[in-house]
Amino acid sequence: MSVSCADLASRIGATVVGDDTVELTHVAPLDRANRHSLSFVNHPRYLRLLAQSQAGAVLIKPEWAPQSPLNNIVCDDPYLCYARAAAILHPRLSTQSGVHPSAVIGDDTVLGDGISIGQLVSIDDNSRLGDRVEIGSGSRIGREVEIGEGTILGANVVIEHGCSIGKQCLVQPGAVIGSDGFGYANDGGQWVHIRQLGQVRIGNNVEIGANTTIDRGAMDDTVIGDGVILDNQIQVAHNVVIGEGTAIAGCVGIAGSAKIGRRCTIGGAATILGHLEITDDVHIKAMSLVVSSISNPGSYASSTPLDESKTWRKNFARMRQLDKLAKRLAALERKFK
Amino acid sequence: MSVSCADLASRIGATVVGDDTVELTHVAPLDRANRHSLSFVNHPRYLRLLAQSQAGAVLIKPEWAPQSPLNNIVCDDPYLCYARAAAILHPRLSTQSGVHPSAVIGDDTVLGDGISIGQLVSIDDNSRLGDRVEIGSGSRIGREVEIGEGTILGANVVIEHGCSIGKQCLVQPGAVIGSDGFGYANDGGQWVHIRQLGQVRIGNNVEIGANTTIDRGAMDDTVIGDGVILDNQIQVAHNVVIGEGTAIAGCVGIAGSAKIGRRCTIGGAATILGHLEITDDVHIKAMSLVVSSISNPGSYASSTPLDESKTWRKNFARMRQLDKLAKRLAALERKFK
Amino acid sequence: MSVSCADLASRIGATVVGDDTVELTHVAPLDRANRHSLSFVNHPRYLRLLAQSQAGAVLIKPEWAPQSPLNNIVCDDPYLCYARAAAILHPRLSTQSGVHPSAVIGDDTVLGDGISIGQLVSIDDNSRLGDRVEIGSGSRIGREVEIGEGTILGANVVIEHGCSIGKQCLVQPGAVIGSDGFGYANDGGQWVHIRQLGQVRIGNNVEIGANTTIDRGAMDDTVIGDGVILDNQIQVAHNVVIGEGTAIAGCVGIAGSAKIGRRCTIGGAATILGHLEITDDVHIKAMSLVVSSISNPGSYASSTPLDESKTWRKNFARMRQLDKLAKRLAALERKFK
Repeated sequence: MSVSCADLASRIGATVVGDDTVELTHVAPLDRANRHSLSFVNHPRYLRLLAQSQAGAVLIKPEWAPQSPLNNIVCDDPYLCYARAAAILHPRLSTQSGVHPSAVIGDDTVLGDGISIGQLVSIDDNSRLGDRVEIGSGSRIGREVEIGEGTILGANVVIEHGCSIGKQCLVQPGAVIGSDGFGYANDGGQWVHIRQLGQVRIGNNVEIGANTTIDRGAMDDTVIGDGVILDNQIQVAHNVVIGEGTAIAGCVGIAGSAKIGRRCTIGGAATILGHLEITDDVHIKAMSLVVSSISNPGSYASSTPLDESKTWRKNFARMRQLDKLAKRLAALERKFK
Repeated sequence: MSVSCADLASRIGATVVGDDTVELTHVAPLDRANRHSLSFVNHPRYLRLLAQSQAGAVLIKPEWAPQSPLNNIVCDDPYLCYARAAAILHPRLSTQSGVHPSAVIGDDTVLGDGISIGQLVSIDDNSRLGDRVEIGSGSRIGREVEIGEGTILGANVVIEHGCSIGKQCLVQPGAVIGSDGFGYANDGGQWVHIRQLGQVRIGNNVEIGANTTIDRGAMDDTVIGDGVILDNQIQVAHNVVIGEGTAIAGCVGIAGSAKIGRRCTIGGAATILGHLEITDDVHIKAMSLVVSSISNPGSYASSTPLDESKTWRKNFARMRQLDKLAKRLAALERKFK
Repeated sequence: MSVSCADLASRIGATVVGDDTVELTHVAPLDRANRHSLSFVNHPRYLRLLAQSQAGAVLIKPEWAPQSPLNNIVCDDPYLCYARAAAILHPRLSTQSGVHPSAVIGDDTVLGDGISIGQLVSIDDNSRLGDRVEIGSGSRIGREVEIGEGTILGANVVIEHGCSIGKQCLVQPGAVIGSDGFGYANDGGQWVHIRQLGQVRIGNNVEIGANTTIDRGAMDDTVIGDGVILDNQIQVAHNVVIGEGTAIAGCVGIAGSAKIGRRCTIGGAATILGHLEITDDVHIKAMSLVVSSISNPGSYASSTPLDESKTWRKNFARMRQLDKLAKRLAALERKFK
């Protein structure tokens, strides 16, 4: 793939200030760039690297461009333009064109145009895959699954029966969508499985990380809104609803029927308990535990400070006495008055 | 599937108070029910929905039935009766009858009657699968594995060699049973792998969540008792023993040789350290860390409160001073005396 | 497999004090041993078991040997010698010799001598597998992957395109190596995927647990040093670097671009935030959160104490008042002066 600066700039919403005929073939960091590399500067601290760089062009903010001796492609958000340019210069390759002969396709399955089905994939009956869908090797698609056009599944992904995924989604390897929710009645000490009859409905432009799991709903559906991004090893329990544009980092667990708003961010390894509601524009820091609803936008945390184990042990012991310490303080205050 | 109220009630241990000839075909929530739907009321707060519902019948407690204008199926535990009724009205479908031609079955493997082996499954030599066992597509069964009758494995499950699963178990997609335990000796800074020679032994009526991992024992076995239910993404290390009827929520980690009693509940994302023992009927709250044995039944927790980040930062800083604060308080008390 | 005490001792660096002709066929704990069993004593508390044991030989420290009535194999580190002996007496069996006919091998793939490729494996074009590599059933190897000699992959492992694994590594089932990193630009509220163009490079003698995920780098690579051991369900984000000989327990999450030193140990369920650096020989306790760089070797922790829920609730409430309590204490101190 070779693209001229002029062509690239017009496609990513930027402007060339310099030689717009330079051909670019790939992206590279400033210090490893050659004359066909596109680099970017996202922070003033990297401007010092420009003088030594061999990059064919650099994505840069207009206010920084005067300091750059390189061929500049000017834009307000170099990181965003980098994202767009990298997608053009490095298009995702699909190994497979059409259906690999080792794949097993069920009856009455509809496959769109330009589809790619990898080695040893299985697709059950009555599923529908849109145009240009790609299914990685070893993935398992249950019956009556719908996958929207342009959606890409990595290797060994599982989509259980009846679930639907929108358009232009990207699912990383090992993700499981539509496993049974963890719902049980108790019969005199014995757990009785409750049939999980809802589905998982995933919007458009959703990204789902490796080995992330999303359970199907009990009666109603588990719903992932448009533009949600989920990192690796996230657990989404049954009947969770995640609002549009929310971003969730790795190892987060979300318990059943929690409803998370739009444009939220959830830090890594946070845990959200069930049957609560988090409003839009809430930001939860890493390793926090959310035990009740949050109705005001803002930033929240519950983690504790790291310390050397020797110091930590002393403070740790005091945490168990905290209520008593507070009462002793109050008693002293009363005496003093 | 269509079942009369009379038939259904007799099979779930309930009593029809109304028209027992109504035919029911499915379960639905009260607000989406039609004349062939079975609904249930599990809490008085939902009684107000009864007046508007079109449900063919409703599972309800005897004391609430007088307030219901619907066809009532009366029982002491509507949620438990719902679990039983949903299993009758919505039997789990197995896509595959018999062994799919794409499956690879090893030598001297014994397959019971009424078995279902999905697409692209592999089963190694000398394994034994009981009657009516179902293996989801892409699952991997090692050599000399035993699977009891009626047990169902989802897609892409892995059961390593020598492990055994009892009867009527349900394993969700992506679970791994019998991976090597994390055991190493140290040879002057180099980790030396210790062969993990035990197995995983799983009882009857056990349920295991998606992408949950259960390591095989080092010398002795890892043991999961009858009726244990494990949610998604749980990590069970080597030589752990989990007692009968214990329920563990998602993202919990249990370190090596921990022994957990019967009828315990472990909240989501809790961590249990190794070589400790938790007695029966212990309940651990979400995101707690258990570092030593628990010998008294009851409820335990170690999590910290969520707060707005601004407030949290102030308290967070104080946690590092806690021991000093306690000492200052003690000093003040001494002076005051 | 039968090995004489003399032969075994010479291979593991130990000395027989007793009958060196005894034939050993397996390892067993002292209380279940027979005359062909090898046992070991790793702690003085187990010396009392020696009198009743039927073991054919016991690995024991020289200073404890006089108390042993058994056939002794003397060595300074019985646990390390046990690790070596168990590997000799119980060599790992590979079910498959050569390439199973159901495997799908891409074009221009190089397979070394003595290789074992299990059922329904797929390997994409231009990958290279060294001598004696074993690939478990259902594993997926992308294009242009390199796997060093003697490395063993369990079932349903995924290695994405371009990644490399060194020699003598062991990867447990369900692990995913080379999934896309979680990198996005934001375009007016919409997340824009950033192509992840780096790879994962894994050294020699690395072990990776079940369902662990390691993301590929954004531009540069994610790097796992020689001799690193990773337990199950660990999440390693893009551009993380883990130094040689570091050991990480289950359920740990490591965010993007974190750099972890050599010979560190990270306890279970700890979370390491991104863009920070942890020096060599740092030990992080279970469930700790690391939010900034650590430049001094030593032991660190941030967890909170478990307590009965009744007591915990009182202390929990006080944590939210901690800053106010500290200020009240300071006020009282001032008044008292």
